Amino acid sequence: MKKIALISTGGTIACVPTEDGLAPGLSASELLELLGGDHSDVSCTDLFSMDSSNIQPEEWITIAEAIKASVGSCDGVVLTHGTDTMAYTASMLSFMLSGIPIPVVLTGAQYPAVYPDSDGRRNLENALIAAKSLKGGVYICFGNSLMLGCRAVKTRTTSLSAFESINYPYVGTVSDGRLLSLYTPSLPAAFSFSTDIDPRVALVKLIPGMSPRLLDYCIDCDIHGLVVEGFGLGGMHSIRRNHSEAIARLMAHGIPVVLTSQCLYEQSSPDIYEVSKPLRDLGVISAGDMTTEAAITKLMWVLGRTNDMSVIRMLMQKNLVGELTEKV
Amino acid sequence: MKKIALISTGGTIACVPTEDGLAPGLSASELLELLGGDHSDVSCTDLFSMDSSNIQPEEWITIAEAIKASVGSCDGVVLTHGTDTMAYTASMLSFMLSGIPIPVVLTGAQYPAVYPDSDGRRNLENALIAAKSLKGGVYICFGNSLMLGCRAVKTRTTSLSAFESINYPYVGTVSDGRLLSLYTPSLPAAFSFSTDIDPRVALVKLIPGMSPRLLDYCIDCDIHGLVVEGFGLGGMHSIRRNHSEAIARLMAHGIPVVLTSQCLYEQSSPDIYEVSKPLRDLGVISAGDMTTEAAITKLMWVLGRTNDMSVIRMLMQKNLVGELTEKV
Repeated sequence: MKKIALISTGGTIACVPTEDGLAPGLSASELLELLGGDHSDVSCTDLFSMDSSNIQPEEWITIAEAIKASVGSCDGVVLTHGTDTMAYTASMLSFMLSGIPIPVVLTGAQYPAVYPDSDGRRNLENALIAAKSLKGGVYICFGNSLMLGCRAVKTRTTSLSAFESINYPYVGTVSDGRLLSLYTPSLPAAFSFSTDIDPRVALVKLIPGMSPRLLDYCIDCDIHGLVVEGFGLGGMHSIRRNHSEAIARLMAHGIPVVLTSQCLYEQSSPDIYEVSKPLRDLGVISAGDMTTEAAITKLMWVLGRTNDMSVIRMLMQKNLVGELTEKV
Repeated sequence: MKKIALISTGGTIACVPTEDGLAPGLSASELLELLGGDHSDVSCTDLFSMDSSNIQPEEWITIAEAIKASVGSCDGVVLTHGTDTMAYTASMLSFMLSGIPIPVVLTGAQYPAVYPDSDGRRNLENALIAAKSLKGGVYICFGNSLMLGCRAVKTRTTSLSAFESINYPYVGTVSDGRLLSLYTPSLPAAFSFSTDIDPRVALVKLIPGMSPRLLDYCIDCDIHGLVVEGFGLGGMHSIRRNHSEAIARLMAHGIPVVLTSQCLYEQSSPDIYEVSKPLRDLGVISAGDMTTEAAITKLMWVLGRTNDMSVIRMLMQKNLVGELTEKV
């Protein structure tokens, strides 16, 4: 019989009504009790009881350490987590727990598990099944869909199918108590654990008319790396409000700039249009088809290893844990 | 025979190869020539020849004035425009040209119209058909799909179906030279033209670990309004890096803060979770189910009319041109 470690961090799945609105209240064992049946194969740990809007880099480290501590004593981990930042956490865990030999399956709910028609109980049951069936890696199991953690994005605020796998096949679907495997990701063979990250990374999503001074603010605030969600394939203003000049100032300060798209689907590329030539010439790093969540967490993780711009560039443009489709 | 005004602004549809990459080069009449056939019912105007990554509030005003000048002398307008910021332009034109009695149909292409397998010629043909068939309003016609301009988002960087209608029905599909009408939006009956906008609006998309100092930038840089893409329904950090306190500082400076979701689909709401109570108490304005593009351009347009916070709030939470589903 496979042994599963259930680690709870709070989130909507664990929420109970309070005077000020919904707030996490249920423990891991209380969640498990709601499922009914025998769960003697599941050991419970309560890590936090937090709304995931408050999960930050410090919590990522605590979660990664708790998961690492369970390697060797169980066959899989299910992590309950709020949905709002679950894709960020799943992406960061993918890097921190690169090559983990057991499956780590994140799940949660759009409605509290104590509600009669909640999706929480089914999601938790499905995640437990996935954790008993999968090989190693970090995944999100939500609304019957199983996807690689570093490819997931929360795209819907209220529907039960809240997450999508972006630019990557779904790993499987879970229904009627069984995992239907659709795709086996190619993941690192060796387990390499590291929680050394530099969280001083900023994100700027461009809008027409944005002042370049917002980019200069990254220098004032001691930001060590920037991800920009540009227009389309990754365009920026080059006239009147010249974003490229501000990017040049950042890079002169040794701040790496990673360019992605504000379009949800498909890859970014600064290689195609004349308007992006200044960005190419500056050596802006393309995020390819990574999600914003993966680009942000990867940059934090890469900056935890090196300050060497050429190594940063090499690592950001290399597929490490399934997060990036490399050009062939 | 209906008369159509074709106004070109550049974009990929008009691109030609250059040494530094693709750059706009074709005029409106050159685009029309590529379609073949008789187009004596179409009058051509070249407004700019720009990559839409450079279209900014100043261009929105010029475009709106050109369209207004054509009211009375034609039955519909087709505006060719780069795809990268087309959804922003379409949203802003929806407000500037509120209640326009003739249809304004934006289109463009993912590949230059001079390429043999470009989508540009078909998109332009479809937009001309839509402009001859529709009633007044601002629309995007792209990849056979016709949608309300203030509900459109570019979701794909390279596929031909680049735009989606978000939280709103598609207005129609165009194929085989005909418009199939799917939904008739309820739009203002009276034409009210105004290009008075305040472009000093900023967007902040939150990431876990974001320093609240990046919000204080809005005060330092003389920003007059802020749109925040929060987590899920609109959550922010309330511990350690306290975003709510920074929001309070902004609002104390008289800067309205509009809260939306970084999830592409479905509405935002600060009313449900305990973690959002500080935002509710501060009087943050919910963007409901508006797109980020609509929330940004609407806030610029509203700030062009008033500095009165209660009027700003009332206008932002009222459906003006189809951009918002009001609660019933």
